[in-house]
Amino acid sequence: MVEIIDTTFRDAHQSLIATRMSTQDMLPIAEKMDSIGFYSMEVWGGATFDAAMRFLREDPWERLKLLREHIKKTKLQMLLRGQNIVGYKHYPDDVVERFVELAYKNGIDIFRVFDALNDVRNMKVAIKKAKEVGAEVQGSIAYTTGPIFTLDYYMKLVDELIALDVDCITIKDMAALLTPQKAYELVREIKERYGIKVNVHTHSTSGLAVATYLKAVEAGADFIDTAISPLAFGTAQPGIQTIYHVLPKELRPKINLKTIYEIHLYLRELLEKKYDHLLNKKALTVNTDVLVHQIPGGMYSNLINQLAEMKALDRLDEVLEEIPKVRKELGYPPLVTPTSQIVGTQAVLNVLFGRYKRITQETKNYVKGLYGEPPAEISEEIKKLIIGDEKPITTRPADLLEPMLEKCRKELEERGYLQKEEDVLTYCLFPQVALEFFELRKQGKLKPLKEKPKGKIIKIYIGGREYEV
Amino acid sequence: MVEIIDTTFRDAHQSLIATRMSTQDMLPIAEKMDSIGFYSMEVWGGATFDAAMRFLREDPWERLKLLREHIKKTKLQMLLRGQNIVGYKHYPDDVVERFVELAYKNGIDIFRVFDALNDVRNMKVAIKKAKEVGAEVQGSIAYTTGPIFTLDYYMKLVDELIALDVDCITIKDMAALLTPQKAYELVREIKERYGIKVNVHTHSTSGLAVATYLKAVEAGADFIDTAISPLAFGTAQPGIQTIYHVLPKELRPKINLKTIYEIHLYLRELLEKKYDHLLNKKALTVNTDVLVHQIPGGMYSNLINQLAEMKALDRLDEVLEEIPKVRKELGYPPLVTPTSQIVGTQAVLNVLFGRYKRITQETKNYVKGLYGEPPAEISEEIKKLIIGDEKPITTRPADLLEPMLEKCRKELEERGYLQKEEDVLTYCLFPQVALEFFELRKQGKLKPLKEKPKGKIIKIYIGGREYEV
Ligand SMILES: [Co+2]
Ligand SMILES: [Co+2]
Repeated sequence: MVEIIDTTFRDAHQSLIATRMSTQDMLPIAEKMDSIGFYSMEVWGGATFDAAMRFLREDPWERLKLLREHIKKTKLQMLLRGQNIVGYKHYPDDVVERFVELAYKNGIDIFRVFDALNDVRNMKVAIKKAKEVGAEVQGSIAYTTGPIFTLDYYMKLVDELIALDVDCITIKDMAALLTPQKAYELVREIKERYGIKVNVHTHSTSGLAVATYLKAVEAGADFIDTAISPLAFGTAQPGIQTIYHVLPKELRPKINLKTIYEIHLYLRELLEKKYDHLLNKKALTVNTDVLVHQIPGGMYSNLINQLAEMKALDRLDEVLEEIPKVRKELGYPPLVTPTSQIVGTQAVLNVLFGRYKRITQETKNYVKGLYGEPPAEISEEIKKLIIGDEKPITTRPADLLEPMLEKCRKELEERGYLQKEEDVLTYCLFPQVALEFFELRKQGKLKPLKEKPKGKIIKIYIGGREYEV
Repeated sequence: MVEIIDTTFRDAHQSLIATRMSTQDMLPIAEKMDSIGFYSMEVWGGATFDAAMRFLREDPWERLKLLREHIKKTKLQMLLRGQNIVGYKHYPDDVVERFVELAYKNGIDIFRVFDALNDVRNMKVAIKKAKEVGAEVQGSIAYTTGPIFTLDYYMKLVDELIALDVDCITIKDMAALLTPQKAYELVREIKERYGIKVNVHTHSTSGLAVATYLKAVEAGADFIDTAISPLAFGTAQPGIQTIYHVLPKELRPKINLKTIYEIHLYLRELLEKKYDHLLNKKALTVNTDVLVHQIPGGMYSNLINQLAEMKALDRLDEVLEEIPKVRKELGYPPLVTPTSQIVGTQAVLNVLFGRYKRITQETKNYVKGLYGEPPAEISEEIKKLIIGDEKPITTRPADLLEPMLEKCRKELEERGYLQKEEDVLTYCLFPQVALEFFELRKQGKLKPLKEKPKGKIIKIYIGGREYEV
C-alpha cells in the first residue's frame, strides 16, 4: 500500500495559480483535508513564503500556525531549498538553523530538503538541525537527465543522504522528465540497496506522471505526491482521484474519496470565481516540448521572453541547440532555479555574441563554486575561459558567509518592527519585502496587493541585471 | 513492439475542436504524417462525415480521396457505427453495404466497427461486407462498467466478433473509464484465449489513459490509439510524444520523432491561429468527475444544459443518483450516443415528474428493442411500465427497414443533384443537410459556414423533441 503526500496547499497552487492561494482560501477545507487519511500535507515552503508576504500581504508564519490549529492529525511538511531555505541565494548557517527550529516549533513535522546542484554540503546544516529538533527529514535527489546521471550517480547521493540520517529519500522530478521505467529502476534500486522509505515527486507537465507513479508504486515506493483535482494536473501534481484508480487495488492508499469529492467541489468553485484569470490553458494541458528539448517549461518561456526582449526570437533554435552544450560544459547542472537561469542566459549570450564572449556574473560565480559543486567537473579550459586565473573555492559556499541573525535582529529592533522572533527570520530572508510588510503591519494596512497578474513572476538575469517578466 | 494508430485527423479534432479541422488544414502535413511509421491513420467516419458537410461545406468523399492521394504508404481507417454507419440511427442493409464498398473504393483500408449496445447483430452486415471487399476489420467492444460487465461478458463478445472473421479486436473506451489493471486483464485474456490482434482505444478525459496504455502494452496489445500533441490529451487521445517515453524501450514503436515534432509545430500554430476559440480549458484539463459518477463528460454537460433549460439545476444531485438506477433497469447500456441521451433524459424526467410517469418515445423504442438488445435483460415489470402490453421485437432492428438506396438515387436524379454514386449515400445518410449541400454545390457556392461556435453541437431530446444546446 502506498501513502499519499498531498501538495494542494503548496506545490499545486504554486504551479497552477502562481502561488496565490491564500490562508483564507485554505481554512474552510482544512479540517476536511485533515480527515482524508493523507500521510502528510505539504503546506509550506518553496515559493509560498515569499508569495504570501509579497502578494497576499500575509505573514507566512501566521499561515503555518493557523493551518496547524485546523490540521491536528495529519503531518505537515515543507519544502526547504537547503542552504537557500525558502529564498534564492545561500544564507549563513545561523539563519538556516534558526529557521528550522522555528518552522518545527510552529507546526512543521517533516522537512523535505533539496539542493539544485545535488550538492549535499548545501543540505547538511538544514538536515542536521531538523533531525536534532526531532523532525522527520526527506532528503531529496533532484532528478535530471544526461550521460553522467547513472544509477551509480544517484546511489552515491543516496549514500550521502543516508549518512545524514534522513528518514526518507525523495526523488524530486521538478522538470517532469522521469519516465515510468526510470522511476521503477531508481525506486527498486534504493529499496533493494537500502530499504529506506522512498517518495516520488513529479509534475504532470509532460504527461508522464500518472504512469510514472504507477511504476514507482509497483517498484515499492512508500509515498507519492499528488494534489486534489481541479487544483492538479498540468504543471502541478496529478490528481489523487485519478491516481487512486490508476493503482492496483491492493496498493491503493486508504483515503476517503467522498471527502475528496467535497473538497473537489470547493476547489472548483474557488478556481472559477477567484483564480480563473491565473489558470491558463498552457499550464493545464500537457506540454510535450519538454520531452524533446529536455528543457523545463518555465525555463522555455523564460528564454522566449529573454529573446523577445532582445529582439532575437529568430535565434531560438540556435539557443535550443546551445543549451545542452553549455550545460555539459558547466558540469551538467540540473535545470532548476537558479541553474536554469544561469545556463539559459549564458546560452543566449553565446549565440548572440559568440561563445563565452560575454559572461554573466552568475556564470562566473557558478564556476567559482559559489553555488556548490556541479555534478560533473568543469574542464580547465572552460574554467579559464570564464574566470581566467581565479581559483574556484573548494569549501562549502556558506562557509564564506558571516552570521547575520543578530545583526538583523538589531536592525529590526531599531526600526521598531520586531514583534516576534519569527520576524527576524523573515527579515533575514527577504529584507526589502519584509520591511515593506512590517511597515504596513505597523500601520494596520495589511491587505492583498491589488494586481492584475499576467501569470507567474519569473525573474531573469541578463548580464547581471534582473528583469521581471 | 506496439504499433500506433494515429487519430489526429479523426477522433482528436472531433474531441477537442468540435470536428472542425478541414481538409485544407490536413493536406500540408499529410505526406509528413505518411512518413512517420504509423501502422494506420484514422481519418474518416465518426462525426467527421456529418461535420465536414454541415459546417465546413466539404464533400466528405472528396476529403477521403485527397487524403488517399497524399498518404500512400500508411493504411487509412475509419470509424463505422455499425448499422448507424456515420449517422445516429439504423439504416437498411443496402445502404450499409454500399457505403462500405464505396469507402473501400475511395481509400479506406481498415474499418473499425462498433455498436453502442455491443449488439453484434448491428455490426454483422458492415463487418461481412468489409471482409468481402478485402478490407481489414477491427471489431470493437464498447467498454463500460457495471456488475454484469465481467471478463466473461467481454469474452462472449469477442467470440461473436471472431466468428465474423474480424482481424483485430478493439477495446473501445469512449468514456475514459478503463483503468490500467482492467486494460491489462482484458488484453491478457484476449491474447491468451484467442491470440488475435488487440487494439486499445481510450481518451485522456479522466487522466487514466497514459497508464492504461502502458499496462495494455505490457499485456501484449498490438496497437494503441494516440494523437499528435498539441491536438491530443484532454478529451482526445494521449499524445504520441508522451506515450513513446512512457513505454519501455523494447516495446516502443519505430516512428520518426523528428517528423512528429515538425507536425507538432504545425498543429500548434494551426490551433493558435484558427481554433483557439474552440479549445476550451475544460476539454484540455483532466476531469476526474467521470471517475466519481461513471458518467461520461459529454453526457454530464448535457444534463446540466437540460436541467438549466427546465430551471431545475438544483435537482442535479438527484438526477446523478437516478442515472445508475435507470441504467440498471434498462439493462445496463454503455453510456454512449444514443443510449447516454436516452438514460439521461429518462432520469431527468423520473426525478422531476416521478419515476416513469413520463416516458420519452426514445425510451419506448429502446425497450421495444429498436436499438438492439441491451447487455442485460430488462425485467417484465419495467417493460410493462414503459411499453405496457406491447411486445418487444426479437429480430435485428434493421430487419424491419425497407431498402432505400434506389429510392434515394431516383429522388436525387429527379432533383438534378446526382453527380456521382457517392452522392446517393450522402443523401441516404443525411437527407436534409445533403440537399442543402448539393444545392450550394450546384450554384458553385460551397464555402465554410460562418459560425461563432460555442463549442460542440450536442443534441438533446426531451419528450421526443430535439434541442440543440
Ligand atoms: Co514540485
Ligand atoms: Co474515441
